[in-house]
Amino acid sequence: MRQTIIRISTSGAGLYEFTERVRRFVDESCVETGLLTVFVRHTSCSLMIQENADVDVQRDLSAFFHRLVPPSDDPSMGWVVHRHEGPDDMPAHIKSALTQTSIGIPVSDGQVMLGTWQGLYLFEHRANPHRREVVLHIG
Amino acid sequence: MRQTIIRISTSGAGLYEFTERVRRFVDESCVETGLLTVFVRHTSCSLMIQENADVDVQRDLSAFFHRLVPPSDDPSMGWVVHRHEGPDDMPAHIKSALTQTSIGIPVSDGQVMLGTWQGLYLFEHRANPHRREVVLHIG
Amino acid sequence: MRQTIIRISTSGAGLYEFTERVRRFVDESCVETGLLTVFVRHTSCSLMIQENADVDVQRDLSAFFHRLVPPSDDPSMGWVVHRHEGPDDMPAHIKSALTQTSIGIPVSDGQVMLGTWQGLYLFEHRANPHRREVVLHIG
Repeated sequence: MRQTIIRISTSGAGLYEFTERVRRFVDESCVETGLLTVFVRHTSCSLMIQENADVDVQRDLSAFFHRLVPPSDDPSMGWVVHRHEGPDDMPAHIKSALTQTSIGIPVSDGQVMLGTWQGLYLFEHRANPHRREVVLHIG
Repeated sequence: MRQTIIRISTSGAGLYEFTERVRRFVDESCVETGLLTVFVRHTSCSLMIQENADVDVQRDLSAFFHRLVPPSDDPSMGWVVHRHEGPDDMPAHIKSALTQTSIGIPVSDGQVMLGTWQGLYLFEHRANPHRREVVLHIG
Repeated sequence: MRQTIIRISTSGAGLYEFTERVRRFVDESCVETGLLTVFVRHTSCSLMIQENADVDVQRDLSAFFHRLVPPSDDPSMGWVVHRHEGPDDMPAHIKSALTQTSIGIPVSDGQVMLGTWQGLYLFEHRANPHRREVVLHIG
């Protein structure tokens, strides 16, 4: 059993891949068969496994969530009460609720069993730069 | 390895925090390093990790999901077929599908590694009172 | 600790139940107390636990996601950039992002602790037939 916290610096909303850092952690753990758990310690960013072949997929994903949950100064968001941390704050909590806080990935032959096109992403929902903490646990 | 089932009584749609009950379970398990898994045994309520500092965040989250998936007697929901358990039933299944059924949280130094502002919630989607079962597993 | 990959053949968008195959895997593993992890190795289909009593629930779920994220040749989806794999491709990635990639279910007395009405589904988001891989891990 092994754990680490990785830090991911973000500069605005969007997807930040960290698949390679996860692979390195699994390598160094020397676990052959097990379960990797990825957990994000925030409520205004989230985790996502997505296609890492075409960067347009990531752009379209961000665009979809921006359209579904616009900033709270948008006329359609007049019902939002929680506003004192800025117009991107409450939408960030909602986007987190719609995606994932933790992901479990089986490990076999010392490798995470991600599919060919699957990459692991931190999905940042805030506009300002942040330093995010993601816990990796293998056992 | 240790398991328990906790029961959460709900009285209408909304978020019900149970972070303290989870911390107590982890304490009593005496596990120093491990993985806590939280699993909800229903399809019309779900799990959510969200900010527990400002109660308006919880109110806005409920409001968002209510707007995205209104009761099935709303004119915009005329396409819904499954109606015999009431107008809040099919929307409850949809809201569950959009959120999480299980969450894994690493445990270190005998503590769940939740971030500073993270609280664990049962997200009730039904209008009538329910008694919900959530499984806690640590290993 | 035991793992397997199950293959699920799909023929168009919709929910495909595989609860019985999961129960069989848990039986054969002879694990009495543990954690089952289910992980899907794709980014255009996903996992869902839903009611398996009334098939209309599954139909309504598919209908909701189709309305929330229509094919990219729909006039409302003019903003989509990633189009070269067909009008159902980018919506499939978005629907995956809105649902789950992995689910953890505690095992007690040799049985997955699913609730009475809970069934495990692969949620296929692509129109053409696919052969999908789902990893089962128990430990």
